[in-house]
Amino acid sequence: MNKAREFDQTVVTELQALLGERVSTSAAVREHHGKDESYFPYAPPDAVVFPHSTEEVRDVVNICRRHRVPMIPFGVGTSLEGHILAVKGGVCIDLSQMNKIVEVHESDLDAVVQAGVTRKQLNEHIKHTGLFFPVDPGADATLGGMAATRASGTNAVRYGTMRENVISLKVVLADGRVIQTARRAKKSAAGYDLTRLFVGSEGTLGIITEVTVRLYPVQEAMSAAVCAFESVDGCTNTVIQTIQAGVPIARCDIVCEKTVDAINKYKKTDYRVAPTVFFEFHGSAASVVEQAEIVQAIAKDNGGMDFQWATKAEDRTRLWDARHNAYFACIQSRPGSRAISTDVCVPISRLAECVAETMEDCKDYFAPVPLLGHIGDGNFHLMLFVDPARPEEAEQAKTFNKRVVDRALRMEGTCTGEHGVGLGKIGSMTRELGEDVVSLMVDIKKVFDPENLMNPGKVVPIQ
Amino acid sequence: MNKAREFDQTVVTELQALLGERVSTSAAVREHHGKDESYFPYAPPDAVVFPHSTEEVRDVVNICRRHRVPMIPFGVGTSLEGHILAVKGGVCIDLSQMNKIVEVHESDLDAVVQAGVTRKQLNEHIKHTGLFFPVDPGADATLGGMAATRASGTNAVRYGTMRENVISLKVVLADGRVIQTARRAKKSAAGYDLTRLFVGSEGTLGIITEVTVRLYPVQEAMSAAVCAFESVDGCTNTVIQTIQAGVPIARCDIVCEKTVDAINKYKKTDYRVAPTVFFEFHGSAASVVEQAEIVQAIAKDNGGMDFQWATKAEDRTRLWDARHNAYFACIQSRPGSRAISTDVCVPISRLAECVAETMEDCKDYFAPVPLLGHIGDGNFHLMLFVDPARPEEAEQAKTFNKRVVDRALRMEGTCTGEHGVGLGKIGSMTRELGEDVVSLMVDIKKVFDPENLMNPGKVVPIQ
Repeated sequence: MNKAREFDQTVVTELQALLGERVSTSAAVREHHGKDESYFPYAPPDAVVFPHSTEEVRDVVNICRRHRVPMIPFGVGTSLEGHILAVKGGVCIDLSQMNKIVEVHESDLDAVVQAGVTRKQLNEHIKHTGLFFPVDPGADATLGGMAATRASGTNAVRYGTMRENVISLKVVLADGRVIQTARRAKKSAAGYDLTRLFVGSEGTLGIITEVTVRLYPVQEAMSAAVCAFESVDGCTNTVIQTIQAGVPIARCDIVCEKTVDAINKYKKTDYRVAPTVFFEFHGSAASVVEQAEIVQAIAKDNGGMDFQWATKAEDRTRLWDARHNAYFACIQSRPGSRAISTDVCVPISRLAECVAETMEDCKDYFAPVPLLGHIGDGNFHLMLFVDPARPEEAEQAKTFNKRVVDRALRMEGTCTGEHGVGLGKIGSMTRELGEDVVSLMVDIKKVFDPENLMNPGKVVPIQ
Repeated sequence: MNKAREFDQTVVTELQALLGERVSTSAAVREHHGKDESYFPYAPPDAVVFPHSTEEVRDVVNICRRHRVPMIPFGVGTSLEGHILAVKGGVCIDLSQMNKIVEVHESDLDAVVQAGVTRKQLNEHIKHTGLFFPVDPGADATLGGMAATRASGTNAVRYGTMRENVISLKVVLADGRVIQTARRAKKSAAGYDLTRLFVGSEGTLGIITEVTVRLYPVQEAMSAAVCAFESVDGCTNTVIQTIQAGVPIARCDIVCEKTVDAINKYKKTDYRVAPTVFFEFHGSAASVVEQAEIVQAIAKDNGGMDFQWATKAEDRTRLWDARHNAYFACIQSRPGSRAISTDVCVPISRLAECVAETMEDCKDYFAPVPLLGHIGDGNFHLMLFVDPARPEEAEQAKTFNKRVVDRALRMEGTCTGEHGVGLGKIGSMTRELGEDVVSLMVDIKKVFDPENLMNPGKVVPIQ
């Protein structure tokens, strides 16, 4: 924790000359920036800076590069795989004060924002336009962080992930050059897709300072529902059949009975304690009714017990707020615990089987294991509680997680549907993609960051 | 044309030992593989091979690399910017005999196909499943070629381009390694997005031998319509307002009156000779009626004159067949001419202005200039006829095209919405993206292909 003492103070002096008071080496600020929502040990940076512009980020990068000091971009610190931990020390570049909405193009259905703008901030800002931004990881993350981690969430089944919803990025490269990855046109075939290369690169190829995202018209009708099922199988089968029927469902998320119980306690709700699917339908008034009728019929065939509806905006928000708080609700249900969240995603045809086998594993775990996930995409999470004071629990959780990953890989799935690689999934990458793909990723990293200063230790195995 | 004489015959001998009769150095075969639909001079390869498997492609690549011979992948030769021209000689790898549909996963809504499978072949094959593959450039191109060029088409406004519809690729690298870029899960956050890096790389980073694509349920109702307008402005405004109203329109393409005239003559149709929009609506029976009513009202407000409907599958096919044949219809209208097709794409808010200014330019061109395009995406094409015997015409067309590109760039657009870079747009890349981005693309190319043997001379400016 006392790395700052060994840290080259001339770096701090140069940063202070640039940013004045917007440089901190205080223990509290460093500690806050040395932890995320993951289970990894804290790893505070040596200093934290708070730039206000792309130019300031560039100048910080130039200082750090000159002194060969690692740089770690930081949004709000809600990553789940240790993405922002300063495992090799260095300077944390906190982008949260770069929170200006630069331009909203209502006619083009896009917006240009600084990297520190959060998804809720953007949606609040554009409320009056009749447009919205759909990607919604649980946390109110920054759009820069969401782009960097290829974030996803409950709306991805209809609106896609950050991969589909980023049009262009402004990026500060390791050598101090500033690039714009693409024009604002909706599509382009102009060369290699650098935008997509930076989406999901987790700060290891450059620092995203500005994001151009797609917006969507708020539909005439948006209707949400909760339905309890006799079994998890009933939930997954309902969703598979719904998608195959061509119903343009906007959201469909599953929570198991343990998660419902935790939500009820945390949010003072009274949902039936059973495997449950949260649905949402978007469209014209007539089409939403039609979609809902089809899905209710499918659900009934699969042991769906009752539909609780929410059509008013505030009721829908409350319902999805309950779902979004599932993670925190579960954590609260075990005071003092932290959680390791699994994150596999499999082809939807294998989902029921994958979940069923995994539920068997859960019986052997020392604590209850809540399940939640975006079953329309084949992506689900299990929360593995661990007591930080008992290292053997973390070991058991890691073994469990590895079994879940291996099972998903056997079923043509991925080790991470949406949380990203960070520190936690580096070991799974070769098993998933093979040595050749991982070595290509290392080679790409070296093109952008030959000295391994950009968020070192993450995504690719370079020491 | 006699490069074969200088060509190292040991390469041919080795290729023949591998593939037997599936190696050709005949003038006819080489010439056929030395031209595409572009206006560039023919550039035949020294030899053409017809592999049947990824392993054979790998072995061909190993032979070519050992002898430092360029390799050019070839699908059906319908590229529009000289993508497949063997400007530095070498071996053309014709993938059209790799046309097996490997697996169709109905429950997962995806299919794995060899690179030589064409889009129509795939759709015919999966007809009985109630699923379809939406991406539809005019030609019946191969899925490998479509992935390599990031192809698009009339359905992109709703279903996206190849960027959104490729899940994973099998690729033979320049050094002979074979990689699979991703698992078959619908989404993943596992490291750098190599799939998207290869989509649009035009054979310059490796040779795509297998493609995993998304499929979609055929909707209960699909209804197409043609509506003539008083002006091109009326067309663009109708489409902009439709999208902003949140109507989930499946297709909306524009053709100008000159194009309609050419289509009528070529396809013996009797569409009104006026600026015209082709629409298509997908959804439940009720929702299609609803969508159609909204769009008809919007069209009426913008000078739309009448809607001709096609709801039966064969009538819809005939209608879109007319649209897809617009390019060939126009070419036929000027016997002996070739055409340079422009391909800019701008933010939709700038589309009306961009088209209007461009139409002014057309008045000065020596021939009629038909316009057609995917206005829902802001992407439109002009056909610039040139007589191959009159080089001054090609010069005038190039000057015109440059003006169109410059205008689009001024309006935050791209030089290529869907045709790709090939030879034709290399000169526009720096103007569009800047020197830094182009130099990064060069660096990425060098990681994958350090000896510049993979389709050299395309996409990036390496000599």
